[in-house]
Amino acid sequence: MKNDHEGQKGEHPLDVLSSLLGDDLVRVNAMILRNMESEVPLIPQLAAYLIAAGGKRIRPLLTLACTRLYGDDGDRPFSLAAAVEFIHTATLLHDDVVDESTERRGKSSANVVFGNQASVLVGDFLFSRAFQLMVADGSLEVLRILSTASAVIAEGEVLQLSSANDIETSMERYLQIIGAKTAALFAAACEIGPVIARMDEAAQKDMRDFGYNLGLAFQIADDVLDYAGEQAKLGKTVGDDFREGKLTAPVLIALGEADAAEREFWVRTMAERNQHDDDLATAQAILKKHNAYARGIEMAHEYAAQAEACLAKAPAGKKGEPLRSALLDVLNFSVERSA
Amino acid sequence: MKNDHEGQKGEHPLDVLSSLLGDDLVRVNAMILRNMESEVPLIPQLAAYLIAAGGKRIRPLLTLACTRLYGDDGDRPFSLAAAVEFIHTATLLHDDVVDESTERRGKSSANVVFGNQASVLVGDFLFSRAFQLMVADGSLEVLRILSTASAVIAEGEVLQLSSANDIETSMERYLQIIGAKTAALFAAACEIGPVIARMDEAAQKDMRDFGYNLGLAFQIADDVLDYAGEQAKLGKTVGDDFREGKLTAPVLIALGEADAAEREFWVRTMAERNQHDDDLATAQAILKKHNAYARGIEMAHEYAAQAEACLAKAPAGKKGEPLRSALLDVLNFSVERSA
Repeated sequence: MKNDHEGQKGEHPLDVLSSLLGDDLVRVNAMILRNMESEVPLIPQLAAYLIAAGGKRIRPLLTLACTRLYGDDGDRPFSLAAAVEFIHTATLLHDDVVDESTERRGKSSANVVFGNQASVLVGDFLFSRAFQLMVADGSLEVLRILSTASAVIAEGEVLQLSSANDIETSMERYLQIIGAKTAALFAAACEIGPVIARMDEAAQKDMRDFGYNLGLAFQIADDVLDYAGEQAKLGKTVGDDFREGKLTAPVLIALGEADAAEREFWVRTMAERNQHDDDLATAQAILKKHNAYARGIEMAHEYAAQAEACLAKAPAGKKGEPLRSALLDVLNFSVERSA
Repeated sequence: MKNDHEGQKGEHPLDVLSSLLGDDLVRVNAMILRNMESEVPLIPQLAAYLIAAGGKRIRPLLTLACTRLYGDDGDRPFSLAAAVEFIHTATLLHDDVVDESTERRGKSSANVVFGNQASVLVGDFLFSRAFQLMVADGSLEVLRILSTASAVIAEGEVLQLSSANDIETSMERYLQIIGAKTAALFAAACEIGPVIARMDEAAQKDMRDFGYNLGLAFQIADDVLDYAGEQAKLGKTVGDDFREGKLTAPVLIALGEADAAEREFWVRTMAERNQHDDDLATAQAILKKHNAYARGIEMAHEYAAQAEACLAKAPAGKKGEPLRSALLDVLNFSVERSA
């Protein structure tokens, strides 16, 4: 995947995309802040800890870009992009409880600071609030897309839970899991763009497929980084998937050509979760031996290429072209980022 | 609150209500079973454990009754009553994780059998599925009512969490908590009846207020039973609220006139959660001394009387009268039940 548009030298592709969108993201952020308010102080406190503290806002940016790409310049995407971010935040809060995570976005995760109970309940609140925002917007089609995505995400998380520590997990099953837990929300975030812009089903499908493939590429790269990343840049703990026994792309690649000793290692560490101090380093050495990082990134590139083909079908008018170019940079960055 | 209609002698008022509704509840149960299906086997397994195993279906019955009360005899309430039950089930699953409960409906709670992780995620799934059902029905007003109720429930749960172990909790704060965590969904379940039947805002308000007051009465009685109930009938552990340091109606009544020693007891056990083996028995003795059970039930009766007044405004045609009468019995039973 090549792209001539490079943006400002050294600038983050999401910042380039954001600046092309004028003050759209500022409007979304204001909508996010206003809608996480509650008479119950713990709710905005916990939500602010996670939401206001940052995050790349990639999903709301996708909703904004995929709306503007079709020439719509109205206000509707602001509340719907906020709804998408709320759904994402709710799943993060619940994931961190489920995974017993301790770090998120470079600091202690909300479950550590506020407790599992508050994380579960504030997740529920944000999820409900997302639906309230959609109801206020009034599009049943947007409601359909995002309620379906939410159900699929939950199914993906349960499937991941059921497949953890299962050394027989196939690459197909892995793609099914990340398709549900990650790509479904990317797909929905993109698909509602043409819905807001009142485009036809063909445009919806193009953006849905763009988002889905982008989501797969993004998650595969993420799963490589969980072994290959630098902890300081990653903002989370390297080796989380290993410790939790989650069978992800790099491990599945290495497992596919493991010798007896290696297989025994993966069974002990991932299936039986009997891990010692230097096992992560050993895992990383085995992955390198099988070139699993580069091959994982190659897989991600293949999905990125499919995403690019979907994006090519979007309109290329004066406004559309720079946005499309910026989206390509985001796509490329999702695969090539080092964190 | 008096009511001449007594139903079949000894029959449970919810069974009487259900039989008045013909095969409505059968249709709702079929809708529930069909919509908790998923390709991921753990989802129907866990959902069935909780949903199919019983529960009184009081909320779906309220939706059905409040639709039929206004003369609507269509199919729409089936999926919406199922959506209400899914929202309720999702909150039960999350509550049991949050409260670290071990028993529900007379058997081990889902979090004990399937783990906290699966309970959180299947709750998310059922919640999303509820919204999918509402979207398929297509009423933005129903979506507004139930998304708002869901946000309010989550707020109420967080408020309860923030107020636990706070000996200064006022009766007003307690009513705010149970209004949000319990009465809001009763109110929504009833309010959507006249919405389905295409009645005006006045009918919506009557049924919303009926449900809200019924919910308050129901929860206050439940909170009394948490001390006064018989474990075998209750289907959950007596003294849960005490152990968790939740300040509920009976304790707030006793606290209002506690002497120094009693206050010290409540501070130690509820605020500091420093509890010994016979503390629950001591708590029960103090509650009896202050007549807190009877006074709690009296409070519940006051809300039941308000609910009755709202119900009196509903139509009293040939079909309406027996339904209204059966709803009065349910209301009465909610306060007087021993479990």
